[in-house]
Amino acid sequence: MVDHVRRREELADSVLTIVARDGITGVTMRTVAKESGWSSGVLSHYFNSRHELLLAALRRAAHLQGGQFKLRRQENAADPVKQLEVLIEDILPLDERRVALTRIFLFFYAEAAQDEATREEIADYLSNWRRVVARAVQSAQEAGSVPSDVNPDLLAVQLVAYADGLSMHAVLDAEVLQRIQHDPQARSMLDLAIGAQIHQ
Amino acid sequence: MVDHVRRREELADSVLTIVARDGITGVTMRTVAKESGWSSGVLSHYFNSRHELLLAALRRAAHLQGGQFKLRRQENAADPVKQLEVLIEDILPLDERRVALTRIFLFFYAEAAQDEATREEIADYLSNWRRVVARAVQSAQEAGSVPSDVNPDLLAVQLVAYADGLSMHAVLDAEVLQRIQHDPQARSMLDLAIGAQIHQ
Repeated sequence: MVDHVRRREELADSVLTIVARDGITGVTMRTVAKESGWSSGVLSHYFNSRHELLLAALRRAAHLQGGQFKLRRQENAADPVKQLEVLIEDILPLDERRVALTRIFLFFYAEAAQDEATREEIADYLSNWRRVVARAVQSAQEAGSVPSDVNPDLLAVQLVAYADGLSMHAVLDAEVLQRIQHDPQARSMLDLAIGAQIHQ
Repeated sequence: MVDHVRRREELADSVLTIVARDGITGVTMRTVAKESGWSSGVLSHYFNSRHELLLAALRRAAHLQGGQFKLRRQENAADPVKQLEVLIEDILPLDERRVALTRIFLFFYAEAAQDEATREEIADYLSNWRRVVARAVQSAQEAGSVPSDVNPDLLAVQLVAYADGLSMHAVLDAEVLQRIQHDPQARSMLDLAIGAQIHQ
């Protein structure tokens, strides 16, 4: 029996591989067929267009990232501050996988600014990400590492905006990429702390 | 005598007006001719394609934003912390002008991920923005409001990433927009300060 769900995932993974290697423009029905080892006929049984392929890759990327967040939360269950750090650092485009994710999200962010259905998809993704971060903030509060008067939802909005902005700038601007590659301070969310040193 | 530079600017402003009102998809040679009050013939004398129009609007947006940054620096010359705050808050999409800027940058960020020439253009824009912010950090250091051991370039990378990420999320996600509309804490860069309350 053919596992259609699994095959769709495999095809979406092929799209992500191409995006990492060649960028979004490298994705066509033909290149995805070639990358996946399936014929164009089989491919078109699952996806009708290049855009459907990209959308499947976006959902796959969001799903993989969601799983990654969960794993990182479990790995660092004993250290809520570390948990918060990795939830932010984990999306920075420091390897091929994460470069592909950043590129595909950027592509759909631009589309989302023009298309209501895509916007909902992106808003869901961002909302899930913030929820994971807000939970990590709460864990850190329960452990006494973050003061109880911090609003977890507000901090989540801020940390997610920071991490996402930094990721995008890193794929667009070599200076920013070098900065996050060579300066751990730039990667760590705890560096947001620097703002506190400003005297009002 | 026709002032061609001025007319190109006017046409780019018409593009920005359309983007604010109807989004990027609202921009066509026809709608820009209509918005500007010039004929399609005159328009095509200045711009050969929709893409050239959008690129002119991007440059115009970057130029206007640069002028805005300069003005804000001067207005708040006596208060370097306030200067830093407005340099960040000033790009958040809280009115039509800034919604248009955020949309047009998002459109070109996605293009820049695929096109080297656009990437250079975007990297220049980001680099200029960081330079203005780094200078404001230095002013704040000279005034004793920011400790001298803070690296102005690093803080500029962080603040610009934060502001840009927050702007993009606000145009994509109504929850984030409401947050920055109603919660001044979310708008202020000084809220980055919250990170400092995490105990290592």
